[in-house]
Amino acid sequence: METFKDALGKHILAEFYECDSHLLNDALFLEKLFNQAARVAGATILGSHFHAFSPVGASGVVIIMESHFSIHTWPEYGYAAVDFFTCSPLMHYQKAYEYIAKKLHSQNHTFTTQNRGTALPQFQKK
Amino acid sequence: METFKDALGKHILAEFYECDSHLLNDALFLEKLFNQAARVAGATILGSHFHAFSPVGASGVVIIMESHFSIHTWPEYGYAAVDFFTCSPLMHYQKAYEYIAKKLHSQNHTFTTQNRGTALPQFQKK
Repeated sequence: METFKDALGKHILAEFYECDSHLLNDALFLEKLFNQAARVAGATILGSHFHAFSPVGASGVVIIMESHFSIHTWPEYGYAAVDFFTCSPLMHYQKAYEYIAKKLHSQNHTFTTQNRGTALPQFQKK
Repeated sequence: METFKDALGKHILAEFYECDSHLLNDALFLEKLFNQAARVAGATILGSHFHAFSPVGASGVVIIMESHFSIHTWPEYGYAAVDFFTCSPLMHYQKAYEYIAKKLHSQNHTFTTQNRGTALPQFQKK
């Protein structure tokens, strides 16, 4: 498998604000959405696990060969916290990010990227 | 449920270096370890999903009422990338972090904490 040159993995933390609250409260919809987002990114899906909470909210994870996608929602605030962890530069997380933003009708969204495993000797500058 | 005052969730990204490589390659061990770590943190477990990779490595997630714990391992480098996402100040992620470090025999480990959902109006300074 192809690897990153500067880290073992990239961990993308994405914030989706001003989403459609009904969608954020629909765990079945979110499970389909995240499986489809993983396909859009070119990831290989190994399994997924979603839960609906009472009175509102949902959590879920898709485990992929390249690592994972997760979501936790607060429908009462129109907000979803998402992360994508990938160990493969061939996984297009930006496509998944844009796909999710569109499907949740998010009017305001952003992400940051954290490099993981960077203290290993192979990533230290000589 | 009690909530944080400055964010909807706390996302802890933990790096475990110089671990026992045999343990990092044992998905069954890791699944038991992470379920136990969730209990140590006082979290409520909803389910877990772990996979062993070929030739080496493992990935897994424990979904908890408070959000999730995940791990991705690189036994060949003695490294594990872990994250804890929690929406509850009552979940003791530091205890889980220390428990995992000890059980993986990690000689070098660190974590950072990211606040999530902080652009919501209730977290803006007046």
